[in-house]
Amino acid sequence: MTISIPRGYRLAGVHAGIKQDPTVEDVAIILSDKPASVAGVYTQNRYCAAPVSWDRRLTPSNDIRAVVINSGNANACTGRRGEENTLEMARCVGHHCSVSTDQVLVMSTGIIGEFLPMDRITTGVAQAVSQLGSDFENLQSVARGMMTTDTKPKMSGRQVETEDSTFRLAGLAKGSGMIAPNMATMLAVVMTDALLEPDTAQRLLVEATERSFNCISVDGHTSTNDTVLLMANGQAASIPITDDKLSQFQQALDEICTDLARSIVGDGEGATHRVTVDVRRCRQREKALQIAKSVANSPLVKTAVTGADPNWGRIVSAAGYAGVVFDPDQLEVSINEIIIFRAGAPVEFDSVALSDSMRQNFDTEIVLDFNEGPAQVCFWTCDLTEGYIKINAEYHT
Amino acid sequence: MTISIPRGYRLAGVHAGIKQDPTVEDVAIILSDKPASVAGVYTQNRYCAAPVSWDRRLTPSNDIRAVVINSGNANACTGRRGEENTLEMARCVGHHCSVSTDQVLVMSTGIIGEFLPMDRITTGVAQAVSQLGSDFENLQSVARGMMTTDTKPKMSGRQVETEDSTFRLAGLAKGSGMIAPNMATMLAVVMTDALLEPDTAQRLLVEATERSFNCISVDGHTSTNDTVLLMANGQAASIPITDDKLSQFQQALDEICTDLARSIVGDGEGATHRVTVDVRRCRQREKALQIAKSVANSPLVKTAVTGADPNWGRIVSAAGYAGVVFDPDQLEVSINEIIIFRAGAPVEFDSVALSDSMRQNFDTEIVLDFNEGPAQVCFWTCDLTEGYIKINAEYHT
Repeated sequence: MTISIPRGYRLAGVHAGIKQDPTVEDVAIILSDKPASVAGVYTQNRYCAAPVSWDRRLTPSNDIRAVVINSGNANACTGRRGEENTLEMARCVGHHCSVSTDQVLVMSTGIIGEFLPMDRITTGVAQAVSQLGSDFENLQSVARGMMTTDTKPKMSGRQVETEDSTFRLAGLAKGSGMIAPNMATMLAVVMTDALLEPDTAQRLLVEATERSFNCISVDGHTSTNDTVLLMANGQAASIPITDDKLSQFQQALDEICTDLARSIVGDGEGATHRVTVDVRRCRQREKALQIAKSVANSPLVKTAVTGADPNWGRIVSAAGYAGVVFDPDQLEVSINEIIIFRAGAPVEFDSVALSDSMRQNFDTEIVLDFNEGPAQVCFWTCDLTEGYIKINAEYHT
Repeated sequence: MTISIPRGYRLAGVHAGIKQDPTVEDVAIILSDKPASVAGVYTQNRYCAAPVSWDRRLTPSNDIRAVVINSGNANACTGRRGEENTLEMARCVGHHCSVSTDQVLVMSTGIIGEFLPMDRITTGVAQAVSQLGSDFENLQSVARGMMTTDTKPKMSGRQVETEDSTFRLAGLAKGSGMIAPNMATMLAVVMTDALLEPDTAQRLLVEATERSFNCISVDGHTSTNDTVLLMANGQAASIPITDDKLSQFQQALDEICTDLARSIVGDGEGATHRVTVDVRRCRQREKALQIAKSVANSPLVKTAVTGADPNWGRIVSAAGYAGVVFDPDQLEVSINEIIIFRAGAPVEFDSVALSDSMRQNFDTEIVLDFNEGPAQVCFWTCDLTEGYIKINAEYHT
């Protein structure tokens, strides 16, 4: 796989020494040659980390030049000193890239409650700036520089061809569940060389996030640092995308965000399966989402998938306690396209064959069809294994 | 431990052959010599089992004589035939005890989606009726007859002394998490020889349930069969409890329900710790409950307890995503009476000593003090271990 970097972006990730392993990147920079429109979507956690507060204050914007990312330390629950360190990171990047401090966004992920090793970070920033480039290798080094308990970097790209121009989009993300010793974070950046007004970028990003990053869960635990950014620097066109092209752009953005979101749950801590919970024909999208979350977050449903067990009882009862009114006799449930429950009762099916299919495939698809309305939601999660328990119980502070 | 049976009750549990192990009881009967007031609280799951529909229709009542319980089969998702089987169970008990069908409540727990083996159940009912008695052994046989994946029977008793009389309460419960192959259920019955009007009984039971059975979670998965009953047959007094004594009765009932609820999470599938999440000084009870649930259901918090890790980051971030507005700088968190987080930042503490205390004690107490108002909630859960995964993933339908 290779991904084209959108025009006018240079990137680099380096090892600055926040993480112990000297072979892994932990400081990364994305620099746009021209001021970019940037939209942001952030964690709703009451405890939000210093970089989240910083970015939230600056976006949406039409004047962002760079994003600096560090992994290994989340700079969360670090009080005033944490805020000063975030400011210092932005100032340091501004200094080395000749942009102003307020043109630099910051993302951090890793351990919480500890102060950033600022000397290492400032050295790493200088080194990263000296290595900026626009090759796929540069993109990869940034993707690796975001990783914590992730086992692989997460990237996705699309190209949008319209009558009068071509835009490129490239996205990066990290996230896997919880980071020893504390918590995980979901970070993502999507770059494009399309020209977007900040408010348009914000609207497009919120829309895409609703259907992707807000539809995944590894363990239902929302981090203090979750951040998704969309950068649009207009280097492929001099006029903003017209309304009739926006849906094309939205689709490409949706696809990238969905790719990245699915990569995150596919790399969930200890996961041996990725699970799609596809809730169809509900009365309202909100109700469908509530049901999908209830099924996807049930430890019973997740462990059934771990054991390749087509356990309809766990699925329908998880739907049943979602707090949504529906007619239990109308629900039809299938796994991997085999119907297992209909009209309030189990259906005869070849459970051995279905169990084999669940065991052999990394992806398990659970469809709940309520036959009541037009709303549909896809939600993604992973199974719950002894590996997850090992990762999260066997660490000691 | 021994518990006095309230006056005017006879009980028995027998092995009827629903469960394979011939040494365990699976059909049980509680018979009141006189018509009792009975209150009921039931599952909110959209899929509710046939016995739940039956009991819900009959309570509150002032004319119940018996409760029949079977384990090993939940009679859930069994349609019209399931309803007929519940009716048949009530009719069979009515026949053998010379009471009417509508005076008999039914509880079932076990596998879902399969039909009850009615011949074994009716034989079991006849046998149980022939063994009815009022000794502690009888109470134990009923408690065992409710068990599914429970590793021990759950019982609690209290005696209330007022100026003019003495009442006894005895409670039984079962519940442990999920039952192979499908789901678990929480069942409880509290008997008393006090005289209560049905509406009073209902009010007292709802109140007690709110603070006990509705404040526990093993895995957040609500069953199709959850049922709590309060039976009051008035055999200790000929006049209803007066208002000034009701608070004494309520307290005893609360204590029994809390005992039983705590026994359930203590016997949670795979549990190596019971966890109390004590949320203090919130603005409203509802908010406190929301935060307590968020912390108690976080797989991260649960696995931290498994690993005896005093991980404040997981606790405060779980509070932070509960969807409740609070001032993060006011929260103080302690585990086993050691303060670990205050004023938005971690506190210095002896983490080795605290970890030792978590490892050595079965009970872990997490206190979150919000310093904002008068509301307090205690919520109980258990840790999340590889044992839970084994029990729930390694079964195959």
